Amino acid sequence: VKLLTLARDLQRRKAREKQGQFVAEGVRTVESLLASPLTVQGLLVTAAAREEARVLRLCEGAAGRGIAVHEVTRAEFDSAADTDAPQGVLAIADIPTAPLPAPGRSGGRYLVLDALQDPGNVGTVVRTAAALGVTATVSLPGTVDCWNAKVVRSAMGALFTHPVVALDWEALRAVFAAHDVACWAADMEGSPLDALDRHLLPPHLALIVSNEGAGLSPHLEAAVAGRVAIPMAPGTESLNVAVAAGILLYALRPATSGAEPVA
Amino acid sequence: VKLLTLARDLQRRKAREKQGQFVAEGVRTVESLLASPLTVQGLLVTAAAREEARVLRLCEGAAGRGIAVHEVTRAEFDSAADTDAPQGVLAIADIPTAPLPAPGRSGGRYLVLDALQDPGNVGTVVRTAAALGVTATVSLPGTVDCWNAKVVRSAMGALFTHPVVALDWEALRAVFAAHDVACWAADMEGSPLDALDRHLLPPHLALIVSNEGAGLSPHLEAAVAGRVAIPMAPGTESLNVAVAAGILLYALRPATSGAEPVA
Repeated sequence: VKLLTLARDLQRRKAREKQGQFVAEGVRTVESLLASPLTVQGLLVTAAAREEARVLRLCEGAAGRGIAVHEVTRAEFDSAADTDAPQGVLAIADIPTAPLPAPGRSGGRYLVLDALQDPGNVGTVVRTAAALGVTATVSLPGTVDCWNAKVVRSAMGALFTHPVVALDWEALRAVFAAHDVACWAADMEGSPLDALDRHLLPPHLALIVSNEGAGLSPHLEAAVAGRVAIPMAPGTESLNVAVAAGILLYALRPATSGAEPVA
Repeated sequence: VKLLTLARDLQRRKAREKQGQFVAEGVRTVESLLASPLTVQGLLVTAAAREEARVLRLCEGAAGRGIAVHEVTRAEFDSAADTDAPQGVLAIADIPTAPLPAPGRSGGRYLVLDALQDPGNVGTVVRTAAALGVTATVSLPGTVDCWNAKVVRSAMGALFTHPVVALDWEALRAVFAAHDVACWAADMEGSPLDALDRHLLPPHLALIVSNEGAGLSPHLEAAVAGRVAIPMAPGTESLNVAVAAGILLYALRPATSGAEPVA
């Protein structure tokens, strides 16, 4: 029952920060977690869920690696789950503590989240950064906790392999200065993306994306070296932040990225 | 009370198809609707909502144009609303019936939705297509009804100005043949996007996006003239469909689009 108490406790951000642990819910997410390098502390499963072959396999795999698997009642499970219709399996794992990775030799790309509040959007943004081969994602203060159950779910496993680091701006600026990473902001008033020559981009580049409504946080205004805008049709104003991040990260990818054949 | 009955009825797809009308909920969405060329039949508003200056302005503006504004109780409003926490204002409007627009002289771009089921994703996809200056979006059978309240909400007004047309594949194929529109599919097994020369693209191009899990519908397999893939980092599998559509539509934009200064 200790795992159950822990899982319930980890619904609160303060508890996640104190324990250095988080909860991942759902069959597919737990499968991705077990396949990742993260340290898994234990699983909670309902009797009904364990009757499904896929969940049984998952539980047996975990138990075979010495990971605790506790069966709980439906009511107990629901008290720890974040979803409305939980699938009856969740895992508790350690939040990775590795520092922000330095840019690789072929060119680093970072995504920086400035006060993004919607957990579903943040999860999709992280999934996008991972798929596009971004070096790491940084969440600045004011951004929803990336280990929130809803972020974890919508990231669809990306959080378990793609480095996501919470840093304040002063610390991030120091790391970027040390590694010569240029910091640009997505900004509707910026230079049009399609006027940029991708082969003249800084070798190491960070892109800051902000809350759609609020725009760039005031203390970042003076700190960014460039601003870039996605050209939009007249009469339209904005894109979903995950869509905007995807377009910008793709268009600003390094000239020689491992994820792509060079045209 | 007739408007209330109608609004309740329009929660069903069959009723929307029969009446040729849909419901738009929320202050901002109703504002966008009233600012659009669509024909608005009436508004429902609660007394509490009407006390807000912004809602009052909206109701007065509508009434000034001869649009019926009916006050209903909270319980009545909730019975017609799709959201969990409705803002107390909704509008009933006519679904546009214009045929699929032909490609413009500067190059047409179409987005085709193949069996996309998630209303939130479809709304974000339509919003993306509108912002990127796509000529029109087509929903093929098997796709969620674009006039579903949740699609309308997540499209954030894009449905009121960007043409969205429901067509079956045979009808669409005939239109595309008549206007010389090439049909490509987003497909993980396709040619890498970054190996394409944007200046050698067909002048008129349609992009088909499919359900993330299911892939391209079998009857479309043989019909597409090309397949294109977004290069992804090793170990990652997919992008959210709205993010993928955004990257592809941006990268495959016409060489001279009205929405962009040419680099």
